[in-house]
Amino acid sequence: MRCVFRYGETACFCVFPEGLLSCSSHGRLCATSTSISQRNNSSSANLKVDHDQTTGVAVMHMQSPPVNSLSLDFLTEICITLDKLEMDKGCRGLIITSSQPKVFCAGLDILEMYGKSPERCGEFWKAVQEMWLKLYGSNMVTIAAINGSSPAGGCLMSITCDYRIMADNPRYSIGLNETKLGIVAPFWFKETMVNTVGHRNTETSLALGLLYKPAEALSIGLVDQLVPEDQVLSVATQTMTKWLAIPEHARQITKSMMRKSTIEKLRSNREADIQNFVNFITKESIQKSLRMYMEMLKQKKA
Amino acid sequence: MRCVFRYGETACFCVFPEGLLSCSSHGRLCATSTSISQRNNSSSANLKVDHDQTTGVAVMHMQSPPVNSLSLDFLTEICITLDKLEMDKGCRGLIITSSQPKVFCAGLDILEMYGKSPERCGEFWKAVQEMWLKLYGSNMVTIAAINGSSPAGGCLMSITCDYRIMADNPRYSIGLNETKLGIVAPFWFKETMVNTVGHRNTETSLALGLLYKPAEALSIGLVDQLVPEDQVLSVATQTMTKWLAIPEHARQITKSMMRKSTIEKLRSNREADIQNFVNFITKESIQKSLRMYMEMLKQKKA
Amino acid sequence: MRCVFRYGETACFCVFPEGLLSCSSHGRLCATSTSISQRNNSSSANLKVDHDQTTGVAVMHMQSPPVNSLSLDFLTEICITLDKLEMDKGCRGLIITSSQPKVFCAGLDILEMYGKSPERCGEFWKAVQEMWLKLYGSNMVTIAAINGSSPAGGCLMSITCDYRIMADNPRYSIGLNETKLGIVAPFWFKETMVNTVGHRNTETSLALGLLYKPAEALSIGLVDQLVPEDQVLSVATQTMTKWLAIPEHARQITKSMMRKSTIEKLRSNREADIQNFVNFITKESIQKSLRMYMEMLKQKKA
Repeated sequence: MRCVFRYGETACFCVFPEGLLSCSSHGRLCATSTSISQRNNSSSANLKVDHDQTTGVAVMHMQSPPVNSLSLDFLTEICITLDKLEMDKGCRGLIITSSQPKVFCAGLDILEMYGKSPERCGEFWKAVQEMWLKLYGSNMVTIAAINGSSPAGGCLMSITCDYRIMADNPRYSIGLNETKLGIVAPFWFKETMVNTVGHRNTETSLALGLLYKPAEALSIGLVDQLVPEDQVLSVATQTMTKWLAIPEHARQITKSMMRKSTIEKLRSNREADIQNFVNFITKESIQKSLRMYMEMLKQKKA
Repeated sequence: MRCVFRYGETACFCVFPEGLLSCSSHGRLCATSTSISQRNNSSSANLKVDHDQTTGVAVMHMQSPPVNSLSLDFLTEICITLDKLEMDKGCRGLIITSSQPKVFCAGLDILEMYGKSPERCGEFWKAVQEMWLKLYGSNMVTIAAINGSSPAGGCLMSITCDYRIMADNPRYSIGLNETKLGIVAPFWFKETMVNTVGHRNTETSLALGLLYKPAEALSIGLVDQLVPEDQVLSVATQTMTKWLAIPEHARQITKSMMRKSTIEKLRSNREADIQNFVNFITKESIQKSLRMYMEMLKQKKA
Repeated sequence: MRCVFRYGETACFCVFPEGLLSCSSHGRLCATSTSISQRNNSSSANLKVDHDQTTGVAVMHMQSPPVNSLSLDFLTEICITLDKLEMDKGCRGLIITSSQPKVFCAGLDILEMYGKSPERCGEFWKAVQEMWLKLYGSNMVTIAAINGSSPAGGCLMSITCDYRIMADNPRYSIGLNETKLGIVAPFWFKETMVNTVGHRNTETSLALGLLYKPAEALSIGLVDQLVPEDQVLSVATQTMTKWLAIPEHARQITKSMMRKSTIEKLRSNREADIQNFVNFITKESIQKSLRMYMEMLKQKKA
């Protein structure tokens, strides 16, 4: 994949061109909110939320340059926003999309995993867990409007949603490709994917760190619908209308019934899962492979 | 869907035109049986059973007007018949089909859930459980000859069988559409469906209360075969011959191995599941939405 | 299926023409190994192993006439070879294929199950478990190069591998068809198949003892790829290169994560599973049906 992003920030290092994981400078967390008539639009450093109070639908635009990498700060910002929306009774549906060109979300920020203290790594992982728990267990209808590539953690965000609409652009891809970088997708990434595409597709996919083109992703059920790129958000909005027409309480109980065993498994193992991640990621061999990977990319860039 | 049923009985209120759940007057339970040479045909108010002793195959025709709604009485009648056939060593295969036009079974009778005492609701739910336990765990080969629409509980009956043959008529549909009425399919409905069409299809299907046209149902595996409407029963009979040619003991053990964990989960939670249902269905908000739903249909009818 | 095998050996009785299970004379276990430069080729009575130390790939050719039936001796030989390769750090990938014409592996040797003492039956079953545990849990990348029919235990071997490439020859078939002979596939056969083709395909498949033609096997996901018969091994070798390019540690942890619950279930129930098998197989009724089956085949042969 050709590198399509500019690298402006200090300490920013984008590994997205390889479609694996990404890194970026850490955005500052400074949310401000303004309320205009029926629309309640809040914007922060890296998120713009359009909440239409008439329809009860919020659209969360990720705008963390260059590729919406999930750093600790960005994850925290996402979690705070999700909490607000979840508690707002006027918000019944959430559409997640990207304001960055050509990418939905490039996944976990590699800089959060390289050269960091175990404490910091643990804090980072806890935030990843937190985002997954909030999204996978949300009472809102959640739709991923995938208007760009969505590797690793970006794919995870997508498959936590109730429905996935992807831009039908063969230059984009989606998948849990952690293995390719020497990282292991944890059991809850795995279970979310099994719940989406079944055991065998997940097994091959994770073993090989596969990224799927939109047509392939549709054929295995990793996304639910492909639409022309400029219609991703409008189709997501129409789809949301259909979902919101379903009696809410029954829909929520049904969703919880489908997902609670997977959610419970993480909830009752959060500390062990964090320790697992920290022990693995701070290993000299893993740090070395991350370093080599980043150096390879620096050379490509140069 | 156009309303194709006449509403003759007092207190009968058919909601089937909307393809959700149905209600009917309660049939009286009066089984009589006659035995003629090799055929052992028993008929009761709402069931006609043709048991061919030569082949060992019983065909159970549901004939509870207008749409084979599963009332407490009808469920009891079905359970008694299933018990008889199960204990009859001469009966090795069971085909379930409908004598009513255009409908296989319209599902649970809504009148059993509206304005009833908790005790009565509990008794009703116990009968639903009982039917599922008998069908899903049957030692007989069970084939659903789905010669009409099959929403909600009708779909449940179908997916408890070993094999599903559906009439290829695009006016018919099948699915667990409880959510659309504000009702929640319980975990064992859900698990039976997951065992049939996988986790993701079940999740979308239950969340949206989807009804599938025959071609769609085939494509996700909700039914196994489509045939012209007038061949449903004959193909079911041919298919049964193939299944009965398999060594019986091995087939039964295999079936039990595939299903026992799901069955055990209900068996060891029957009381809690009943309480769950009763608490939910007797809620004022749920009763209100059932009432509104029925009133809406009365107006349509008028 | 036409019988394509010659029956030379005393006490050898091939039931493969029916595509069920097979029997053969017991090969002697006499492994010898020679090491030539970069290739480490070991051969024994029934296995030829080409281990290319440059690529780290071993090809295990099954050559137990006539149809690679899994007798106790052959299973033992396979297990010893798997242990050696597993412990050899120079071996990272294993391709399993057949040197016998038209058959990959015809499954468990019926002679090990007929007229044998409970002790012997138990010893046999323990060896079947052992082979499955070693293959399903292998740290190596395992690819089945299925260059012939692969019923019952042959199918089991195939689905324990990471990837399956089958010869696109409609005269070949693959499947867990034990039920057809009156035998029951144990829970770990079942779970391996569920992990490969899902619950519903497994249920129908085991209930009817289905054998799938290559195109059907591909369509349900029982094999991953079809290639012309003379390219099975070369495509397997190319595929192996792709798998070996994945960071090894991450791939192994991922594989273990996908399979460990199934493996654990057998590990913690080995004795009970053996008792189960022995009790079942030594039943007079089962022995009788095995005898009838063998007599039927003798008559066909005559």
